[in-house]
Amino acid sequence: MRSFEVFINEYFQNFYSSSIKDAAYYSLMAGGKRFRPQLLFAVLDGFNLPRENGFHSALAIEMIHTYSLIHDDLPCMDNDDYRRGKPSCHKAYGENTAVLAGDALLTESFKVICADPHLTSKQKIAIVAKMSQYAGINGMIYGQYLDLKYENDQTADVVVLQDIDYYKTACLFILALEMGMVIAHDEANREFYRSFGAKLGSLFQIQDDLFDIIKSSEETGKPQGSDLKNNKLTALSFYDRDTIDRLLKKTIAEIVELLNSQKFDTSFLLKIVEKIKDR
Amino acid sequence: MRSFEVFINEYFQNFYSSSIKDAAYYSLMAGGKRFRPQLLFAVLDGFNLPRENGFHSALAIEMIHTYSLIHDDLPCMDNDDYRRGKPSCHKAYGENTAVLAGDALLTESFKVICADPHLTSKQKIAIVAKMSQYAGINGMIYGQYLDLKYENDQTADVVVLQDIDYYKTACLFILALEMGMVIAHDEANREFYRSFGAKLGSLFQIQDDLFDIIKSSEETGKPQGSDLKNNKLTALSFYDRDTIDRLLKKTIAEIVELLNSQKFDTSFLLKIVEKIKDR
Repeated sequence: MRSFEVFINEYFQNFYSSSIKDAAYYSLMAGGKRFRPQLLFAVLDGFNLPRENGFHSALAIEMIHTYSLIHDDLPCMDNDDYRRGKPSCHKAYGENTAVLAGDALLTESFKVICADPHLTSKQKIAIVAKMSQYAGINGMIYGQYLDLKYENDQTADVVVLQDIDYYKTACLFILALEMGMVIAHDEANREFYRSFGAKLGSLFQIQDDLFDIIKSSEETGKPQGSDLKNNKLTALSFYDRDTIDRLLKKTIAEIVELLNSQKFDTSFLLKIVEKIKDR
Repeated sequence: MRSFEVFINEYFQNFYSSSIKDAAYYSLMAGGKRFRPQLLFAVLDGFNLPRENGFHSALAIEMIHTYSLIHDDLPCMDNDDYRRGKPSCHKAYGENTAVLAGDALLTESFKVICADPHLTSKQKIAIVAKMSQYAGINGMIYGQYLDLKYENDQTADVVVLQDIDYYKTACLFILALEMGMVIAHDEANREFYRSFGAKLGSLFQIQDDLFDIIKSSEETGKPQGSDLKNNKLTALSFYDRDTIDRLLKKTIAEIVELLNSQKFDTSFLLKIVEKIKDR
C-alpha cells in the first residue's frame, strides 16, 4: 500500500506546523496494519475500481481509528504507556497535546471526505453520515462506554461482551466496508457488508483478547496482560482457551461461508480474512 | 429561543442511554448563552428565513463549542473545576466520561448536519467542510495549541495574541455566520461574514480576558483570575485597563461601521453585537 502511505504524507502537508500535527502524524504512522483501509480497498478491488478512489475515505477511517487509540491510551482511560511497541501518544507528546491530537484527527477525518475529488456531494454526505453513526455515541463511543463500564464488573454476561465487540471493534469494520459500498454504488448488498463486518469484528476482537495473554509485549507492541491488569471484560472472562479456539474456528467458517454465498467477487475480502486469521 | 431548546432536547432522544449521553447533555444545557446559534439565526432573520432552517446547524456548532469547553477544562488542559457556575464535566462525571462526552459531541455534530431536512447534499457538504475547517487543526484546535504553547511564555508579542483570539474564538463565530450564509444562499457576502466574525471574535475574547479579573466568580461562573493563575497570554499581558477600554470601544465602532456599510439588512446582527457589548 505504498501509494496510500504517500497520499497520507502529502495530505499532512495541508496542516499548520504544531506539536498537535506532529503528535497526530506520530500516531497515524506508528506501524498500524491498516486493516480498515485494506477492507475498503478489497471492496473496490472486487468491482475493479482504482484504489485511489478510496484513498480519502481510507485516510478518514484510519484517522478515526487512530484518534480512538490515542484517547483510549490516556491515563484517565486505559492508561497504556505503549502502543505498537512505541511510547503511546501522551507519553511521547504530553497529555494535553494527545487530547488535542485526537480531537484534530477526528475533526480532520470529515474534512478529508469533503476534499475527495472522486465523489459526488450525495456520496460524500452518505459517507459523513456513516462515519458519524458508526464512530459516534450509538457506535464506537458506545463501545468505549461499555468497555469502561464493565471493568471490574463480574455481573456482566456474554451478551454484554458481544455488544462491546460489536460497538468497539465491528462498527469501524462495517464503516470501512460501507464506505467502499458507497464508492462502488453497491447499496444493494448493504446487509451483506453489515453481517460480514460484524462477524469479522467479532473474530478480530476475540483474537485480541487472546493475544493479550498468549503473545509477548514484543509481538503485540503493548504490555502483556494489559486487559487483565485493567480487569477488562473479554472472551477470557467466560471461556477457557480450548473454547476460544473452537469459537475462532467456527467464526472463520461462518465468514467464509458468507463470502462464498455472495454472487459477486468476494475473493479480495477473503484474502483479508486470511491475513487476519494468520496474524 | 425556546423552540431551539426543545429541538435540542428532542434530538437527544436519538442517543442510547449512557453516562456519556448524560454528561454531554449536562454540559450542553449548562446555561451557555447560545451566542453562536444567535449569530446564525440573525443571518437567517436578515433574509426573512425561518429559524427552524438553521436549527440543525445551530445545534452542530453548539455541540462543537461545548466539546471544546469540556476538553479545555480537563486536568491536563486548563484544569478548571467550574464552568458556568457548575462543576465542570469531568468534576461531575469523571475524567474518562468527560473525554468521551467531548468526543461524542464532536462526532454527533456532523451527524446533525446529515439529518437536516432543509438542506441539499451540496449545502450539507459545504457546511461539513466549514465545520471541519474552522474547528480543526488549522482552526479552533490551532488556537488551543497556541493558547497552551504561550502559557508562561513572556517572549510572545501582540501578534501571537491576535492569532490566539482569531483561532480560539473568532473561527467558531465565522463558522456560525457562514453556516447562515450557506443556508441563505448568500455566498456573495462571504468576505463580509469573515471580517465581521473576526472582529466580533476579537471583541468577545478581549472582554473575556478583562472579565477574568474584574468580574466575580458568581458573574462569570468560573473562578476569578483563572487565566492569571494559568499564566495565559491575554489582553492584560500587554495593555492596562484604560487601553483595553479604548480598544473595546474602537472595535465596537469598527463593527458597527462594517454592519452599516452593507447593502442588506444587518439590523439583526447589530442586535447581537449590542448584546455582546452589554454582557
